[in-house]
Amino acid sequence: MPNPTAAMLVIGDEILSGRTHDSNTHYLAGVLTKAGIDLREARVVGDHAPTIVSAIQTLAGRYDHVFTSGGIGPTHDDITADAVAQAMGRSIDVRADARALLEAHYQKAGIELNEARLRMARIPDGATLIDNPVSAAPGFVLGNVHVMAGVPSIFKAMVASVVPTLTGGAPMLSRSLDVHRGEGDIAAPLAELAARYPTLSFGSYPFQRQGAYGSNIVARGQDVAALDAALAEMQERFG
Amino acid sequence: MPNPTAAMLVIGDEILSGRTHDSNTHYLAGVLTKAGIDLREARVVGDHAPTIVSAIQTLAGRYDHVFTSGGIGPTHDDITADAVAQAMGRSIDVRADARALLEAHYQKAGIELNEARLRMARIPDGATLIDNPVSAAPGFVLGNVHVMAGVPSIFKAMVASVVPTLTGGAPMLSRSLDVHRGEGDIAAPLAELAARYPTLSFGSYPFQRQGAYGSNIVARGQDVAALDAALAEMQERFG
Repeated sequence: MPNPTAAMLVIGDEILSGRTHDSNTHYLAGVLTKAGIDLREARVVGDHAPTIVSAIQTLAGRYDHVFTSGGIGPTHDDITADAVAQAMGRSIDVRADARALLEAHYQKAGIELNEARLRMARIPDGATLIDNPVSAAPGFVLGNVHVMAGVPSIFKAMVASVVPTLTGGAPMLSRSLDVHRGEGDIAAPLAELAARYPTLSFGSYPFQRQGAYGSNIVARGQDVAALDAALAEMQERFG
Repeated sequence: MPNPTAAMLVIGDEILSGRTHDSNTHYLAGVLTKAGIDLREARVVGDHAPTIVSAIQTLAGRYDHVFTSGGIGPTHDDITADAVAQAMGRSIDVRADARALLEAHYQKAGIELNEARLRMARIPDGATLIDNPVSAAPGFVLGNVHVMAGVPSIFKAMVASVVPTLTGGAPMLSRSLDVHRGEGDIAAPLAELAARYPTLSFGSYPFQRQGAYGSNIVARGQDVAALDAALAEMQERFG
C-alpha cells in the first residue's frame, strides 16, 4: 500500500518579505519521513484570505493530510482559522472549550482575556482542538487539515501531539555515501543503479568541504534489503 | 503603479524529505523586497516532471516573474530544464553557446565533458542564459521563468545577475519596534493603527528573549512619511 501523502502550507507575510526564515517546513519534513507519510508539496502564502482559502482547498483535495503553520494569533493579520473555515464550508465562532483553555491560562498568569486574545478561541464548527502546551491557544484539525501555530516551539509541540494520531506507512529510509568525485563523474553509473533498483529513489548532492569538491549520494526507499544492497554497490563503485 | 509580483519554485526531493533545508527562498525574499518586487508565493515540489510542469504553468500565468531553484545538474534526477521547456511549449536540446561554456570550464580544469555533464547544456529553444561564475553550468530565462541552480552559492550569484535586469517598483520599506507586551495587549491599538494607515501593512511577531516575552511590531510600505509617522505613533503608544 502506498504511503499517505501530505502538504505543508506556511502562512505569513513575514516569510515572503524575508523578515522571517521558515523553519517549520524542514522540521515537519523530518517528522513525516520518519512516520512514513510522504510530504509531496510545501507552499508559502501571505496573510491574504482568498489566497489562503484557495490553497487550502487545492491541497486538501490533492493530499491525504494538510498541515498549516502561522496566522492563529490574536492580531488583525491572524486570519488562518477564518480562512480554513471558509475553505471547508464551516461556520466559525468563539467555542466554549477553546475559551475555557484560554481562561484558565490567562487567569493563572494574571492577564486579562481581552477581545483580541478571545479571537484565539475562534474554532470552526466540527473541528477537534490541538493542545498548545506552551501558550494555551489551541490549534485544530478540521477534516484533513491540521492548523498549527507559526512560532517554532509551539509548532513542534503541536506536531508531536498530532502526527502520532495519524496512520503512517512504512517509514522512508535512506542510505548515503560521500564520494570525492564530481556529480558529472558518477551520473552515468548512478542512473544505471537507479534503473536496477526501481523501488528506490537516488539523488546526488554536490558539496564543497575544506576546499574539496564531492557528491553526497542518497538512496531512499522502504526496502531495507534493497537499500543495503544498493549501498554496498555504491561503496564498491564509488568508495 | 503596483509593484511587479513574483513566485519562487524550489525543486527537489531532498527538501521534502527533510535532508536539506532550503535557504534560497529566504535569500530571494530579501533581495526582491529591496528591489520592489513582491514575492507573493513560494512552493516546494519534488523531482517529478508532471508536478514541476503544472507548478510552472500555474505560477508563470499568475505572477510577473517566476524563479526556480534546483534540478539543473548532471544526474538523472535533474529534470528541471526539460520540465520548464515542456511547460512553456518549447523544444530543448544541447545548445552550442551553453556547450561552449562547459567545454571551456572543463578543459581548463582538466575534466572530461562527458555525456552526463553535457546534459547541463540542454537549454530550451529561445531561452537566454544566466551566467554561473562558480561552476559554469548556466541557468536560463525563458519567458518570465528564471531557472537557477539549487546550490546556495550559485543561486545567489545567479540572483545577483538576474534581479538587476528586472524592472522593480518602489522598494518595500519597513519600520519595526520591539515592545515588552504580549500580542494580545497590543492587538486592538495595532488594528486601529492599521485602519488609519491604509497604505501600510502591519504585522506583529511574538518573541521570547532571556525569559521575557514581547512582540516585534513591523509596519511595511513604500511611503516613507507614512512609515515614519506610524513608527512615531507606535513608540508613543507602546514604547
